[in-house]
Amino acid sequence: MKCSPESRLTDIDVRSVSPALAAYTQNTLLRLWERTELSPRDRDIVTIAALIARNQTVQMAHCMDRALDDGVKPGEVSEIITHLAFYAGWDNAMSAVAVAHAVFHQRGVTPDKIPPAEGTRLPLDEDAEKQRAAAVERNFGAIAPGVVRYTTEVLFRDLWLRPALAPRDRSLVTVSALIASGHVAQIPYHLKRALDNGLTEGQASEVVAHLAFYAGWPNVFSALPVVKDVFETRAK
Amino acid sequence: MKCSPESRLTDIDVRSVSPALAAYTQNTLLRLWERTELSPRDRDIVTIAALIARNQTVQMAHCMDRALDDGVKPGEVSEIITHLAFYAGWDNAMSAVAVAHAVFHQRGVTPDKIPPAEGTRLPLDEDAEKQRAAAVERNFGAIAPGVVRYTTEVLFRDLWLRPALAPRDRSLVTVSALIASGHVAQIPYHLKRALDNGLTEGQASEVVAHLAFYAGWPNVFSALPVVKDVFETRAK
Amino acid sequence: MKCSPESRLTDIDVRSVSPALAAYTQNTLLRLWERTELSPRDRDIVTIAALIARNQTVQMAHCMDRALDDGVKPGEVSEIITHLAFYAGWDNAMSAVAVAHAVFHQRGVTPDKIPPAEGTRLPLDEDAEKQRAAAVERNFGAIAPGVVRYTTEVLFRDLWLRPALAPRDRSLVTVSALIASGHVAQIPYHLKRALDNGLTEGQASEVVAHLAFYAGWPNVFSALPVVKDVFETRAK
Repeated sequence: MKCSPESRLTDIDVRSVSPALAAYTQNTLLRLWERTELSPRDRDIVTIAALIARNQTVQMAHCMDRALDDGVKPGEVSEIITHLAFYAGWDNAMSAVAVAHAVFHQRGVTPDKIPPAEGTRLPLDEDAEKQRAAAVERNFGAIAPGVVRYTTEVLFRDLWLRPALAPRDRSLVTVSALIASGHVAQIPYHLKRALDNGLTEGQASEVVAHLAFYAGWPNVFSALPVVKDVFETRAK
Repeated sequence: MKCSPESRLTDIDVRSVSPALAAYTQNTLLRLWERTELSPRDRDIVTIAALIARNQTVQMAHCMDRALDDGVKPGEVSEIITHLAFYAGWDNAMSAVAVAHAVFHQRGVTPDKIPPAEGTRLPLDEDAEKQRAAAVERNFGAIAPGVVRYTTEVLFRDLWLRPALAPRDRSLVTVSALIASGHVAQIPYHLKRALDNGLTEGQASEVVAHLAFYAGWPNVFSALPVVKDVFETRAK
Repeated sequence: MKCSPESRLTDIDVRSVSPALAAYTQNTLLRLWERTELSPRDRDIVTIAALIARNQTVQMAHCMDRALDDGVKPGEVSEIITHLAFYAGWDNAMSAVAVAHAVFHQRGVTPDKIPPAEGTRLPLDEDAEKQRAAAVERNFGAIAPGVVRYTTEVLFRDLWLRPALAPRDRSLVTVSALIASGHVAQIPYHLKRALDNGLTEGQASEVVAHLAFYAGWPNVFSALPVVKDVFETRAK
């Protein structure tokens, strides 16, 4: 069974309260996972990112389990959580750690499957990073030097270069978390970055469809105008 | 006692931490429920929608119980949950299912009180729906075909036409959820729709006052400018 | 140990899922608390406000305990919770009451340490309040008379004047909650008020850096443009 929200309740339970919701789950939500615009592995990543960003831990164990079945590596789950400490808040990540700890334990994931804190980093695109850093420094360097420094040193010169999660997947996690928690103003930069990192527009479009169910229609309709703007700007 | 947030704690507990909060609850929040601008039944619906949208399950059982006492039908609670699967996210609805399941069981709600998945639908206003669908298709059809298709087929040609929750109440649930979770950009369309569906401006205004307490002042002050704009546009 | 999010898990647990996250916690997050731009007491208040605003109760007991160790008075914790009933929603406050009740009990906090519901109020700046009330009445008096009345009578003529939490700290709580839950549109008024109440721009800037970790980078980058605008407008 796919990592659907009803998986933590017996199907009987849902039907006893809402046969309609049980039917929508079967006929619409579960079929969503069969759409080929996005692989099951990507849908797992999008779903886990949305759950962590929205701090919804009840269903998280089942979804992580399913993700590991679909080929997401334990090390990638580890990196997704670490990444979202920065992009969804430290406590959201810590709640996810508790869930992953249990899932990893039950599956017998050995320590060698978990990426170390230190080690090699991916090569940095110095030009792009200089441009990003300069823009942020120009905008906010004077009023928020602390944030600006952490953003450069910890996020863009370290976290984003950790090799155990591909930049394209790291972007997928980031964009999913932004849409799922309504951070519309932060979508343009990260959606552009995601497309630069190899996410296709078709995949990004399907991420939005997927999140309509997992984060609700309002988050998605608030994201659509900026998604559209990013796509149209790139087409020029 | 009204479905107030302190109901899940003894009054002693609240007073031991904050006599002021206990007093505000008694003298302000509970009296809010006596204001005649909105019926207790409507306040129950607004409160439940806010709790589900904000994923606050602790107090939910008491509020559903109170709603059933005030004349909200079990079938309407069922539909509110199903509706919010789409407007607040699937997992929020699933958490509410677990609560409703326990409440229904304890009150001996029989299966015949719960609306079936299938069955007749309310008549569709074909003109209005064509206009809505065309606008969404024009805006987002090219960049998000998946979302656009689900929105038309599942939401506006099925969910909104389910007869066990009146369109006016369905709109009340939607607007309450949008305000309670800060989805300001989605308020104009749904508030207009709510007024078209029979919610009065006076009731909508009192929904805002009610939600100030249940979702916090910032959500309400962010909603006010768009509420004002909708009211003023209709007055022309 | 500082009130860091990992405090509720053993360090072993975090390392078993993500050595990187454990390292970022040690080398970055815990060192953040040592930056002198903001006192530990202020960081405690910012952290508690963020946790209540985001309804993250798991780590709350430890953070309240730490705050009391750092010199935040039980009466101030009580007032922070009461204040956030209005600025983060009643149920968020009620969840915090349950946590504080246990913390106060364990530390043997006696009832005389808790501010009473009634009693003297701080003097009101009648001119500033008349100006505020007039602006809100002009904007929203016609469309939301209920909210406008509660805002004046309960919030600005009572809650804000309660003496057991200094106006500067009340503002610190409010601004932290607004940033932590993404209420960008409400930041300008309350940040100006905070600066008027004695929070320095340097402290406000460091509140933002602190919240980057506790509420996530997206909330902070969405807040930065309005923080900048407030600072620049005051400089003129």
